[in-house]
Amino acid sequence: MSPETPSVEKDAAAYLKTWAARVEAELDRRVPEEGSEPPEMYRIMRYSLFAGGKRLRPVLFVAGCDAVGGNPEALLPAACALECIHTYSLIHDDLPAMDDDDFRRGKPTSHKVFGDAAAILGGDGLLTLAFRLMGDESMIRAAGAERVLEGVRILADAAGAAGMVGGQLLDIRAGGQVRRSGELEDIHRRKTGAMIRASVVLGGLLGGGDPGQLDALARYGERAGLAFQIVDDVLDVEGDDTTLGKSTGSDEAQEKATYPALHGLEASKEMAKAAVEEALAALSIFPEGAPALASLARFIVLRRF
Amino acid sequence: MSPETPSVEKDAAAYLKTWAARVEAELDRRVPEEGSEPPEMYRIMRYSLFAGGKRLRPVLFVAGCDAVGGNPEALLPAACALECIHTYSLIHDDLPAMDDDDFRRGKPTSHKVFGDAAAILGGDGLLTLAFRLMGDESMIRAAGAERVLEGVRILADAAGAAGMVGGQLLDIRAGGQVRRSGELEDIHRRKTGAMIRASVVLGGLLGGGDPGQLDALARYGERAGLAFQIVDDVLDVEGDDTTLGKSTGSDEAQEKATYPALHGLEASKEMAKAAVEEALAALSIFPEGAPALASLARFIVLRRF
Repeated sequence: MSPETPSVEKDAAAYLKTWAARVEAELDRRVPEEGSEPPEMYRIMRYSLFAGGKRLRPVLFVAGCDAVGGNPEALLPAACALECIHTYSLIHDDLPAMDDDDFRRGKPTSHKVFGDAAAILGGDGLLTLAFRLMGDESMIRAAGAERVLEGVRILADAAGAAGMVGGQLLDIRAGGQVRRSGELEDIHRRKTGAMIRASVVLGGLLGGGDPGQLDALARYGERAGLAFQIVDDVLDVEGDDTTLGKSTGSDEAQEKATYPALHGLEASKEMAKAAVEEALAALSIFPEGAPALASLARFIVLRRF
Repeated sequence: MSPETPSVEKDAAAYLKTWAARVEAELDRRVPEEGSEPPEMYRIMRYSLFAGGKRLRPVLFVAGCDAVGGNPEALLPAACALECIHTYSLIHDDLPAMDDDDFRRGKPTSHKVFGDAAAILGGDGLLTLAFRLMGDESMIRAAGAERVLEGVRILADAAGAAGMVGGQLLDIRAGGQVRRSGELEDIHRRKTGAMIRASVVLGGLLGGGDPGQLDALARYGERAGLAFQIVDDVLDVEGDDTTLGKSTGSDEAQEKATYPALHGLEASKEMAKAAVEEALAALSIFPEGAPALASLARFIVLRRF
């Protein structure tokens, strides 16, 4: 913990913990194994859904909703949808045909437990469930059908071919041979940035935000997402295994393109800090400064440096 | 061609051909490779989207819409969404981790051309695109946001863990060891039946159908879907390779549970005919008899016997 800013870290950690628990309970309620058919299908989905994720995307959604004065409690299905999409992407990325990871967050990956076919289908089920949750009747009551459908478009654009899925393809095709900074940024903007941005914007949209507010949230989400990715790369070099649940240096072992590899460690840290400052600057249009989003952005870089 | 019913087969074939071409053109317009980023992503998706599919599900959607007096032309994004979901399911089912098929409709399967990782991602991209198409602004203008969201729920339920994805898991886990008829019906009801039923119901829903009409369409879709699956199994035993684009007897080679294996060939044919009669009976509530749906149902069994 950085000595200068104990309250920021404490606030963000408390906010994360509170809302992560709410999202967890909602996921548990909405994706039950018992009474669901076929039961193994739900067991596979739940195994990865409840594997100790930080719930960063749902919490960014809640903070985006808070920033515009919305009621996140009524919109939790959308928060759950974001986590379903994140979880499905991890299951598919871990497959032998992709990154071939045996462990994530210290637990055997889905395909190690259930087999490759079941892991593919578990991911497919979670992606489909995300849109089922978006269309939930309670969402329409809370945000109105028009806004919910705008949310469906935002989510699909961020998760799909031009966003997360396309980014993963670019990453695999690059195979660590990224040499230009623009190429690396393009991969990350799609692969992780798009969903982080969408999480914040979706919270603002469904919470009733106006176009100016949504623009600011998009800018915040872009810069915070970039910072998050750089920090992830840095932690992979110097972090500890408990934080990531994967082996330190695993990106290097897989010859993945990273910010430290391209820019060096110190420059990468400076880039992350600059991105956080830009994220914070985007919040200036909110009269009360969107404290939850602000502390979450600072928390991202404070995780280690 | 059966001599007693030339007009039925001709009508259905003409209807299929006309609307399949409209759906094809709409898919081509909405999933362009040129100008899309990243281009390979769209190349992968288009390779399987334009691999000679019959467009049965989109055409059933159109016929369901016609039955309630709706305007299918304005709702083509939903028809395309159905085809995207069907295509993604074929790509994932063909993977080495699943059914391990090298050819489909006489062409090398996606993973044979692009590799397993790209095929997984291509499927993911198509599934996500389906929901993006459902949320399209033109859909809201044509059917209203509330109905579109009801359609999202119907589509996600049919495609997801309790429907198609769950059915594929059950099929893989059964590994041809299905002994009870109820088990086989459960697998097919989920794996293929759910999406065929949803195609018809979605057409009726977005076309403005009332609850009584949607119930009738659901009943029609269930029985027509069952007939379709039985015929597929029968054709696998006695059909020709050009119809299916896979080797005759391939289900047997893979020890897949089929209707002929469980009930014998003749009894399976009778079951298919009975299911079509039930599908036709469900259409009696439509004053004009829903001619497109009726001829499509007859066409399903007339394909060979």
